[in-house]
Amino acid sequence: MESRLIRYLRGRLGPHPLVRLGAGDDAAVLSMAGTSECAITVDMLTDQVDFRLSETEPRRIGRKALAVNLSDLAAMAAEPLAGVVALALPRSRGMELAIGLYEGLLPLAERYQLAIAGGDTNSWDGPLVLSVTLVGRVGARGPLVRSGARPGDRILVTGQFGGSILGRHFDFEPRVAEALLLHERYELHAGIDVSDGLSIDLAHMVEESGCGAVVRTDAVPISEAAHALAARTPGGPTPLDHALSDGEDFELVLAVPPAEAERILADQPLEVPIVEIGEFVRQPGIWQANGRGEKSPLAPRGYEHEFD
Amino acid sequence: MESRLIRYLRGRLGPHPLVRLGAGDDAAVLSMAGTSECAITVDMLTDQVDFRLSETEPRRIGRKALAVNLSDLAAMAAEPLAGVVALALPRSRGMELAIGLYEGLLPLAERYQLAIAGGDTNSWDGPLVLSVTLVGRVGARGPLVRSGARPGDRILVTGQFGGSILGRHFDFEPRVAEALLLHERYELHAGIDVSDGLSIDLAHMVEESGCGAVVRTDAVPISEAAHALAARTPGGPTPLDHALSDGEDFELVLAVPPAEAERILADQPLEVPIVEIGEFVRQPGIWQANGRGEKSPLAPRGYEHEFD
Repeated sequence: MESRLIRYLRGRLGPHPLVRLGAGDDAAVLSMAGTSECAITVDMLTDQVDFRLSETEPRRIGRKALAVNLSDLAAMAAEPLAGVVALALPRSRGMELAIGLYEGLLPLAERYQLAIAGGDTNSWDGPLVLSVTLVGRVGARGPLVRSGARPGDRILVTGQFGGSILGRHFDFEPRVAEALLLHERYELHAGIDVSDGLSIDLAHMVEESGCGAVVRTDAVPISEAAHALAARTPGGPTPLDHALSDGEDFELVLAVPPAEAERILADQPLEVPIVEIGEFVRQPGIWQANGRGEKSPLAPRGYEHEFD
Repeated sequence: MESRLIRYLRGRLGPHPLVRLGAGDDAAVLSMAGTSECAITVDMLTDQVDFRLSETEPRRIGRKALAVNLSDLAAMAAEPLAGVVALALPRSRGMELAIGLYEGLLPLAERYQLAIAGGDTNSWDGPLVLSVTLVGRVGARGPLVRSGARPGDRILVTGQFGGSILGRHFDFEPRVAEALLLHERYELHAGIDVSDGLSIDLAHMVEESGCGAVVRTDAVPISEAAHALAARTPGGPTPLDHALSDGEDFELVLAVPPAEAERILADQPLEVPIVEIGEFVRQPGIWQANGRGEKSPLAPRGYEHEFD
């Protein structure tokens, strides 16, 4: 029952300095002291698209629902403040499921000192749907937007790409700390997180920035999982194909002016490697350059929700 | 396609003084200048529970998804600032449906100068789900909470109750302006909006406040729709039963100290009538008193999401 879940949440959620009023009223009340601009983002996850409830622990699903939103805040270089969670639960074993989801979500929230301020819990005859909305604080340097890339900027990326479907799309660590550190210490022109796919998200970035990008394909960090996936279907997509188009890597793609890029590459200030995979150019579109310097168009591929 | 919907939204949404960065980036960015505390609320609506897509215009559904959230902000006496919208669309005719939903939602947002700052649009093989999250500004008097009712306070309500299923649950006007005016001009101790049902929402209020309430049943404003609904099933629920338990009236229930209640009743400062239906008492629980002053327990009834 709804009220039982509210009791569980009230017991489970500790006090948080930002939350003046938590779950159980018509809305939560947050202190906005010291926040002149905030980032707000929402991501909805549905059964069979973002996870399969029949195959996956509710904790991993709940964790993912929060992590994808934290990754969006990271992409804006916004510090996570608070979130609300809306659930549409299948009627059978809904309470157990809800608690499982929250038990996956809450440890990640605690790790980022994110206040879970409230939510809305529904039951229905359909499959599981989760929607998480987060509010983050934009710092003095302003948000890290998609639209700031300029010709000559280097393309820097964190981590590795491809094959996240083998498990990492549940267990990835959102690059919140990394984005905040980089945005504070270095001059970044633009940023995005890879949710749909490296090539398609890079395409979003150049479209918003009014420029193009050349990717040196031999520099793209390819994950073990991308190799494993490619090995399953000989003659199918290569490990590089997976890295460029699988999506849900939730790594950062950054546009960084050349001298600053050199500093970051030399400093390696993150726990995760950060590497250069190409540069932004005047000519619109996404291009690939191989090890011999030959250029060709790179068709952006990845996930886009299709509806007529 | 998702990007087509973003283009539609970018064209449809005008600039808004609060929105520094709107739809199309990883998160929206809002100015929080002048906002020391904000209320945040989320409500998710699902097909067959909150509406029937097969029977109802998408515009009315989109309007409702926003209106129920505005009603939650009203219940906190928070001024609407901005919102984000998450959709899970059935694959067939999803674009047309999404535009229909937004065309119902956006005029209501404009009416309250609410910025629709962004969203997340998904397609899947399930039924329609909408989740709206709103952020509102809490004024100098602080939020209007559920927990402030004290014995002796009068129970004041706006509007009429019962039978909203006949249409008003789609077309109701959220009591935003009314709540802001009352909270600014008068001393209110507590407030809630009636979503689940007058008696059950009153029960929520007394539970949070640690007191009880006596409802004078002959004073409860009963809507025409409640009469119409009762007339359909002779021997079934009475118009009063409908008024006490139907829910989705989205009227305000307020706890007001006696002298202040007299002022409000005499002033009638709202366009909608505001009347007294009883008082808060020390003894926990909800009680009804009939015209002859006879008291009996009133079992709170209304809608609660059931899940095992």
